[in-house]
Amino acid sequence: MEKYVSLRDIEQAALALLSKTARDYYKSGATDEQTLAENKLAFQRLRIRPKCLVGVERCNLHTTVLGVDVSMPVGISPTAMQRMAHPDGELANVKAAQEEGTVFTLSTIATSSIEEVAEAAPLATKWFQLYIYNDREVTKKLVQRAVKAGFKAIVLTVDTPLFGLRRADIRNKFTLPSHLRLANFDGLLSTKIQSTDSGSGLNKYVEELFDKSLTWNEVKWLKSITTLPIIAKGVLRGDDAVKAVEAGCSAILVSNHGARQLDGVAASIEALPEIVEALKNYNVEVYLDGGVSTGTDVFKALALGAKMVFVGRPALWGLTVGGQAGVQRMLNIFRTELQYTLQIAGTPTTADITKDMVRHESSYFLRK
Amino acid sequence: MEKYVSLRDIEQAALALLSKTARDYYKSGATDEQTLAENKLAFQRLRIRPKCLVGVERCNLHTTVLGVDVSMPVGISPTAMQRMAHPDGELANVKAAQEEGTVFTLSTIATSSIEEVAEAAPLATKWFQLYIYNDREVTKKLVQRAVKAGFKAIVLTVDTPLFGLRRADIRNKFTLPSHLRLANFDGLLSTKIQSTDSGSGLNKYVEELFDKSLTWNEVKWLKSITTLPIIAKGVLRGDDAVKAVEAGCSAILVSNHGARQLDGVAASIEALPEIVEALKNYNVEVYLDGGVSTGTDVFKALALGAKMVFVGRPALWGLTVGGQAGVQRMLNIFRTELQYTLQIAGTPTTADITKDMVRHESSYFLRK
Amino acid sequence: MEKYVSLRDIEQAALALLSKTARDYYKSGATDEQTLAENKLAFQRLRIRPKCLVGVERCNLHTTVLGVDVSMPVGISPTAMQRMAHPDGELANVKAAQEEGTVFTLSTIATSSIEEVAEAAPLATKWFQLYIYNDREVTKKLVQRAVKAGFKAIVLTVDTPLFGLRRADIRNKFTLPSHLRLANFDGLLSTKIQSTDSGSGLNKYVEELFDKSLTWNEVKWLKSITTLPIIAKGVLRGDDAVKAVEAGCSAILVSNHGARQLDGVAASIEALPEIVEALKNYNVEVYLDGGVSTGTDVFKALALGAKMVFVGRPALWGLTVGGQAGVQRMLNIFRTELQYTLQIAGTPTTADITKDMVRHESSYFLRK
Amino acid sequence: MEKYVSLRDIEQAALALLSKTARDYYKSGATDEQTLAENKLAFQRLRIRPKCLVGVERCNLHTTVLGVDVSMPVGISPTAMQRMAHPDGELANVKAAQEEGTVFTLSTIATSSIEEVAEAAPLATKWFQLYIYNDREVTKKLVQRAVKAGFKAIVLTVDTPLFGLRRADIRNKFTLPSHLRLANFDGLLSTKIQSTDSGSGLNKYVEELFDKSLTWNEVKWLKSITTLPIIAKGVLRGDDAVKAVEAGCSAILVSNHGARQLDGVAASIEALPEIVEALKNYNVEVYLDGGVSTGTDVFKALALGAKMVFVGRPALWGLTVGGQAGVQRMLNIFRTELQYTLQIAGTPTTADITKDMVRHESSYFLRK
Ligand SMILES: Cc1cc2nc3c(=O)[nH]c(=O)nc-3n(C[C@H](O)[C@H](O)[C@H](O)COP(=O)(O)O)c2cc1C
Ligand SMILES: Cc1cc2nc3c(=O)[nH]c(=O)nc-3n(C[C@H](O)[C@H](O)[C@H](O)COP(=O)(O)O)c2cc1C
Ligand SMILES: Cc1cc2nc3c(=O)[nH]c(=O)nc-3n(C[C@H](O)[C@H](O)[C@H](O)COP(=O)(O)O)c2cc1C
Ligand SMILES: Cc1cc2nc3c(=O)[nH]c(=O)nc-3n(C[C@H](O)[C@H](O)[C@H](O)COP(=O)(O)O)c2cc1C
Repeated sequence: MEKYVSLRDIEQAALALLSKTARDYYKSGATDEQTLAENKLAFQRLRIRPKCLVGVERCNLHTTVLGVDVSMPVGISPTAMQRMAHPDGELANVKAAQEEGTVFTLSTIATSSIEEVAEAAPLATKWFQLYIYNDREVTKKLVQRAVKAGFKAIVLTVDTPLFGLRRADIRNKFTLPSHLRLANFDGLLSTKIQSTDSGSGLNKYVEELFDKSLTWNEVKWLKSITTLPIIAKGVLRGDDAVKAVEAGCSAILVSNHGARQLDGVAASIEALPEIVEALKNYNVEVYLDGGVSTGTDVFKALALGAKMVFVGRPALWGLTVGGQAGVQRMLNIFRTELQYTLQIAGTPTTADITKDMVRHESSYFLRK
Repeated sequence: MEKYVSLRDIEQAALALLSKTARDYYKSGATDEQTLAENKLAFQRLRIRPKCLVGVERCNLHTTVLGVDVSMPVGISPTAMQRMAHPDGELANVKAAQEEGTVFTLSTIATSSIEEVAEAAPLATKWFQLYIYNDREVTKKLVQRAVKAGFKAIVLTVDTPLFGLRRADIRNKFTLPSHLRLANFDGLLSTKIQSTDSGSGLNKYVEELFDKSLTWNEVKWLKSITTLPIIAKGVLRGDDAVKAVEAGCSAILVSNHGARQLDGVAASIEALPEIVEALKNYNVEVYLDGGVSTGTDVFKALALGAKMVFVGRPALWGLTVGGQAGVQRMLNIFRTELQYTLQIAGTPTTADITKDMVRHESSYFLRK
Repeated sequence: MEKYVSLRDIEQAALALLSKTARDYYKSGATDEQTLAENKLAFQRLRIRPKCLVGVERCNLHTTVLGVDVSMPVGISPTAMQRMAHPDGELANVKAAQEEGTVFTLSTIATSSIEEVAEAAPLATKWFQLYIYNDREVTKKLVQRAVKAGFKAIVLTVDTPLFGLRRADIRNKFTLPSHLRLANFDGLLSTKIQSTDSGSGLNKYVEELFDKSLTWNEVKWLKSITTLPIIAKGVLRGDDAVKAVEAGCSAILVSNHGARQLDGVAASIEALPEIVEALKNYNVEVYLDGGVSTGTDVFKALALGAKMVFVGRPALWGLTVGGQAGVQRMLNIFRTELQYTLQIAGTPTTADITKDMVRHESSYFLRK
Repeated sequence: MEKYVSLRDIEQAALALLSKTARDYYKSGATDEQTLAENKLAFQRLRIRPKCLVGVERCNLHTTVLGVDVSMPVGISPTAMQRMAHPDGELANVKAAQEEGTVFTLSTIATSSIEEVAEAAPLATKWFQLYIYNDREVTKKLVQRAVKAGFKAIVLTVDTPLFGLRRADIRNKFTLPSHLRLANFDGLLSTKIQSTDSGSGLNKYVEELFDKSLTWNEVKWLKSITTLPIIAKGVLRGDDAVKAVEAGCSAILVSNHGARQLDGVAASIEALPEIVEALKNYNVEVYLDGGVSTGTDVFKALALGAKMVFVGRPALWGLTVGGQAGVQRMLNIFRTELQYTLQIAGTPTTADITKDMVRHESSYFLRK
């Protein structure tokens, strides 16, 4: 794995290895993919303002999320159907997270089950990402199994009444390869996604099965069936963040779903400050995912108020190039880059990162 | 038609099919074509701010224009001489509009007559686009025939004292193929455009026949000969919008004529807010055309105050690739994309789209 | 000439025809040529705001400069050594100006003499561009000859204590071809530029002969030897414009010398408003040159307060492709484009062009 | 050397001559190299506002730094291991500085020793750049040798608790060629950098030997062992500049270490105004390095408050193409370009360059 020096190295190698269908599914964004590009470009519009000679020998990347210690503020976002990337799929991913001391989030529509994941990495901090199905019994059972398997939080995805239009999936008539199944389900729910008459099999699956009538009241229902903390994933507005918290969420994951839901929305790093501001009088944590590609991106998100960042595709690229080892390499590239950043920026611990450490490029342009 | 997944697919296929003269005529903008590019780029500078968990099961794209129900807020702008794109020309186009439940606008200089169009699609909502000729009797007759044929509004194009300089047409010495005629006219007026000694035959036609002395008083004259509502097409300034309305117009179509008249003018989506603002105390509708290419573009225009958007070239591309079916495919791509947008943005009906749903990108850049 | 539909057509044809030395000399800007590009880009950042239905049948491009009627507000800036472009050089250029009814400005370092130019086009409005030599007698004689030959103004170039660094000229060891001479001079002054030991022969010529100690007092000296109006060419700051006028200048030509003097200065169209503003209480005319390439550029300059614009390189390209006829074609492209612009913008005469007709693109971006 | 007309010419020739390892080491910036590009782009966003007719015959480039006269405000920043560029390395560089009458700064980790450098150019103004080692005796000895050898200032690099992540060096497993040594050290300290098991040998060297616990108190310690003025190199924030000065520094070198330490920081020219502003009530000098590539860049830095600028890579490129002569050519290109700039900008001496001579491009964009 040593030959991979940057995330981009891993990504390029992975794109060359994957089948067209899997590659397109993993990398696509919604429609014109403008936001997909913006998720990265927006980080580049921020400038770090390093401090000198502060004494950085005590550099330390640890932080906590929801009270649990993690070795660094970079965790793994839920991504569906990981066995298309590597035979070990979610199991390799969660083992990497365990080894590297960070959070792994399992997708509802994973190709490994809640129980398999728990067994593969009993010591990892595991979160369960939830889609709410029309059938509430199905939904309830998922939550109960996650609780039982030792998952530590429910990540409720709130931006997905249906799946975004991803043109490549439509062109490819995306289906799950027949040797794989949605492992958290039985019967039709586990195999339905394996066929389609036209368009993306995934979109049809979601269109039929996910509940479109959801409102923030659902959080209350969720809280009535579990005591796990609930994280609202997919919030892009300050007012929605307040609604989430007032409905009972313990944290907000600012996210545009990797630019896969609606093209033309803000980059998640652009949306972050509005949400941090709206929640300043609430005692909750704010996270971010979307386009995080370097240690300096992590730093910028933290400076703008995120407690932790998550990565989706980077873990898929790591999985593809080397299973567990590939994901660990990816995480360690982030770790090294962040460590360098903390030291050279003069903020040896994540707690030292204050808001003034980052400024928008336009604040330089517009100075008279 | 199923292979066309995006408007761009249809456009590319159409450009490959058309003759050079027709292709150049359809796609050109004025002189350097800067505004032609801006019409699209300006949409990309707007950000959608989606709301989560609002309950979107009741998603519905219907709206009304001038009191008439349409199945979605995307209609068809007038474009001249459509039989160069497909033998059925305007007839295929209006039938598609009828089938899809939206507005069709017939150009004065069409290659199918008012009566042919009315007969082809008796149930469609049809509007007639009017150029005012030096010869007012000719002009009056056009309006009277449109009324008689059941057209529901007069779209008065106000940005065309002469036709814009389109270099390709000059180079191609553009003329109408000899098997086609301007079907709304008899004799010379219907065939004059078929020849030119130098430069564009179209420009010469307009230069000689259109009335350059027009002022807003013309609207009063028009109202004296018809009771149909009048829509001013081509307004780009707030003060002009007010003049139009005070002269008796029922609606404004914010448009730069597909960037074909004057290069260097604002993108129509950039001009829209000024006009909406200027008309806020008038009870009129505002529409937009120019560069609308995706469902998110439609959404952005509605959020900035348009009641409906129109597309010009997209219908020409649809016509070219498949006649009526091609136009329907084009409309259905918009329909699907808008449906996804409404649901994921958390505004299940067009009435839910409020101004705060969209923000200019610079509002993110400049926040301290 | 009819095949040339835009200025760019003429430019491209000319670039292909010229020898490397002449081509490089004509097209170069100073050092990195950033301002050379900005001169054009800055026009593209301005938006025209057309008015509809104002009655444009009385469209008319005439204007006056310093009290003299011209057929359109586009004149010819001084450029040196025009016989490198075409054997007829300045004579063809001035005849074109005469034919087209606009101003021709003769460079001090022309390859045709004051007298030859006057004889070639007795009816043209001719201005003489002056460089002040260390030898004041030489300088004085130039002015006196211009007066005698019927030139109507002295264009005093104020931005040239030495010539800008143009790397191509240094690499080419630029010299004037030996069959040509600086026709306004005798003896060494007319041939010195024909040789160089290293670097650009032109730069050495200027370095040795031009007076670097000039101040605004020179204008007073000039006024003591001639009653012709004096135009200060090369002003880029409001305070300098005021100094020029207070020293006795009748007009200001806002110019960065075609980006040939100092790289990194503002585009001339960017500098224009500051100068118009600074002079608002003085009764003087303001002109502009630099990067004017289309009729809409002319319009934008007029809207920002210029009374007239001038073009330098465009006349050289015209000369190259067709001598007098080429320059006329170039002027007529501007004329046509401006005529279209005036009509479609709803300002049928140049006097109708008010400040609100143009807005900077950022005024659209930054609207909340 | 005459064929090199611009710095870019020299750079391109040098890049072609160097071995891959040396080339990559010299040109790299940290991680994604965004700031590396910004260091140059930011200069291009500034506009010079030239004044006309001020009398520039007395043009003169001299200035003083820390009370010493230099022939122009362009000096040489410290860069490590210059013998990879040319066998004469630092000795050629310092001789060029002596010949051209400007400052040479010797790196701690040079391939020529303090004493060799002093002997090669006894009359040059020499500064010694200091890295503080864990071993304070080693550090102290360096300073004492510099004092003894006649160096005139200590340039304390404050941005380097460890070396930035430069991916090419990691890929190349960068080591110093075995015929070279870090000439300021004996034994292991001089050869350690010649080998690496994995990654960059340079990074490992620094990681082990440099003191990460440094604070601004170190300046006081330094002052206790030398009376030489101390220049803090690597400051990018106003508050840090104040800390440096209050700790006893005599000058600040605004620098992002040639974009080699932390990617995503501001261009040094963007950071400059904040530091000048913060120090306006202190009697200290401010310098700048990073991306300075033309005479107009020098001018812009001076207008924004720098007393002098320094160049790092340009000297390496000069060394590569021609040893001492190459560095002199590079310096003379800057000299010529600056001389032209001063004259054409109407500020014949560096003392004439006032703040109003430069404006940010956005001040033109946003003017209403
Ligand atoms: C292939 C793929 C599948 C995804 N599946 C899910 C999912 O099942 N549930 C979910 O909440 N988010 C899902 N996401 C979104 C991710 O959780 C995350 O928000 C996104 O990938 C972050 O952006 P990044 O990929 O740029 O790091 C998926 C993203 C990708 C790329
Ligand atoms: C080929 C073509 C012909 C057009 N003909 C007319 C016309 O006859 N009358 C009119 O008012 N507008 C005409 N327009 C302008 C359109 O009504 C409409 O404003 C424009 O096409 C919208 O931009 P879009 O093409 O980007 O959707 C024409 C546009 C094109 C592209
Ligand atoms: C080849 C060339 C020669 C020039 N010679 C002179 C000159 O002799 N005197 C002068 O005042 N300006 C001279 N200029 C500047 C022009 O007068 C004018 O300011 C400039 O060309 C305008 O920019 P444009 O070329 O983009 O239209 C010259 C410009 C060029 C391109
Ligand atoms: C190859 C190289 C080696 C460098 N070595 C040192 C060094 O030893 N000490 C130091 O303080 N700065 C060092 N620097 C930074 C330079 O002093 C200077 O800040 C930088 O090169 C300025 O940017 P420029 O290269 O764009 O002119 C080095 C830079 C380069 C490119």
